[in-house]
Amino acid sequence: MGEEAANVKKKIIIDTDPGIDDAMAIFVALQSPEVEVIGLTTIYGNVYTTLATRNALHLLEVAGRTDIPVAEGSHVTITKGTKLRIADFVHGADGLGNQNFPAPKGKPIEQSAVEFLVEQANLQPGKISVVALGPLTNIALAIQRDPGFVKNIGQIVLLGGAFSVNGNVNPAAEANIFGDPDAADIVFTSGADILAVGINVTHQVVFTEADRNRLAQSTGKFAQYLCKILGIYYSYHHDAYATQGVYLHDPTALLAAVNPSLVTYTEGVVRVQTTGITRGLTLFDNTLKRYGEITEWSNKPTVKVAVTVDAPAVVDMVLERLLNS
Amino acid sequence: MGEEAANVKKKIIIDTDPGIDDAMAIFVALQSPEVEVIGLTTIYGNVYTTLATRNALHLLEVAGRTDIPVAEGSHVTITKGTKLRIADFVHGADGLGNQNFPAPKGKPIEQSAVEFLVEQANLQPGKISVVALGPLTNIALAIQRDPGFVKNIGQIVLLGGAFSVNGNVNPAAEANIFGDPDAADIVFTSGADILAVGINVTHQVVFTEADRNRLAQSTGKFAQYLCKILGIYYSYHHDAYATQGVYLHDPTALLAAVNPSLVTYTEGVVRVQTTGITRGLTLFDNTLKRYGEITEWSNKPTVKVAVTVDAPAVVDMVLERLLNS
Repeated sequence: MGEEAANVKKKIIIDTDPGIDDAMAIFVALQSPEVEVIGLTTIYGNVYTTLATRNALHLLEVAGRTDIPVAEGSHVTITKGTKLRIADFVHGADGLGNQNFPAPKGKPIEQSAVEFLVEQANLQPGKISVVALGPLTNIALAIQRDPGFVKNIGQIVLLGGAFSVNGNVNPAAEANIFGDPDAADIVFTSGADILAVGINVTHQVVFTEADRNRLAQSTGKFAQYLCKILGIYYSYHHDAYATQGVYLHDPTALLAAVNPSLVTYTEGVVRVQTTGITRGLTLFDNTLKRYGEITEWSNKPTVKVAVTVDAPAVVDMVLERLLNS
Repeated sequence: MGEEAANVKKKIIIDTDPGIDDAMAIFVALQSPEVEVIGLTTIYGNVYTTLATRNALHLLEVAGRTDIPVAEGSHVTITKGTKLRIADFVHGADGLGNQNFPAPKGKPIEQSAVEFLVEQANLQPGKISVVALGPLTNIALAIQRDPGFVKNIGQIVLLGGAFSVNGNVNPAAEANIFGDPDAADIVFTSGADILAVGINVTHQVVFTEADRNRLAQSTGKFAQYLCKILGIYYSYHHDAYATQGVYLHDPTALLAAVNPSLVTYTEGVVRVQTTGITRGLTLFDNTLKRYGEITEWSNKPTVKVAVTVDAPAVVDMVLERLLNS
């Protein structure tokens, strides 16, 4: 690829808690000529942050991309003291399908995730997108750390929320937002350029048994690796949703950043409920009504909320990119 | 009408905060041969409770139905101390379009709304339906007063909630549930036979200018009366929703009780958020996911939640019954 083409690549940082679908998303990103992954930042969610960092390093070693830095993120929610909810029952105790992979040889960089995010946004204002695949603690901390972050960072494409549908942690809340509702509300109301891809969208993107079989028949390293770890993810989906496939949460959000035309979106203010039985609920104001009173949604910055997705195209792109390795 | 036909009439108590669309609903009920209105109980909401009682008495006098008792309901929310939100900007300071109607001659009965509801449910177990058109304080108090109430009362058809759509008080909450979220959560989780008709349904039922003109051309007393009070209701809708018509909230809930085939419903657990920015939000669990953890929706009684409505049929029935007077 010539330097000119390389120059137009979109630079992205993936904030991630790997996680089986995080692994898929990271591999798809590394196989996507449209983007350059300039770093991974880690967060708790599918696993604790320490393990997320270890898994991020491991996945980059599997990919032969140890040139990409990993910056470790927060170990606690932004309000601290909140007990973390770790989804090891979805991804395995190791976050990667209980495969007992060897420890990575590499180490995270000295900078924290927040320091890395703020520095990169400042170095190339408007040029770096963040794809946030876990709870939004690191992003909220970056917003709090640097008043210029929301302007300097490019688009933040986040996998999070359950807009007008039931959540996946409980009927009210989606897992990433539930993981740190206070952080999520800070991010949604920050004024940054945000595209939220919620489970109302990602539940439309199913990777079937037939799709998994196509991976299994490939000799590509990413396909082979993913087939090892996907078993527990299929079992979980079968038990929880009575489906024969799995939802491509993280790969869908990643591809929405790579190719925005895969989704359509609406635009408006999103707030996050931070207390009570619907803690972690994301609520979008469609502005169809002019309320007589000032509301908690009034005069807040808007965000983009994905509404539709070209699900077959997402599955095809995931397969195509994972098979060609 | 023979005694046999009279015997099969469904007996209903209307819990109401009149209110312009309450007036429409009460008149439609009085004109509906399928039901017998055995009492009105009053509640704050569109107006304070004292005025709701006065308006209920007034409307029965307009209708020539002073045989129907009015029982005054609670003046405060179930948790007390909560500041009431009174929708006088929708219905006028008097709740009936600022028409300076004379004071009613009648008085409410000695029994409170709660005493009346409990007594009637006990007198004719399973035979009395409640059509609840305001905040649910009286119903929740009846449930707390008498452990047998949820079994003895027939169906409770309530106008309340905003299921998977924005509210009308703010993006999260519908007015009747917002009026007393604690009471609403008690009612929804009580185990009573409940049909909730939310604004996701009633916003489909628009009474147009043409419909109002049909009322105006009638010499019927109900049509004439309603044309006097509807002006402010149309103005409010025009300003708040940029529509040329008004939503038939209360008449739709009333007619769903009169003729259940006008709506379709789904069934599941509904909880109400009682704190924070989404206070008053109604959240329905569609049970499509088997959650790994016990949730606040687990093992709670289900309710029916209206999903679709035959809107043209509702408008036709409202017109037909109001014109024939």
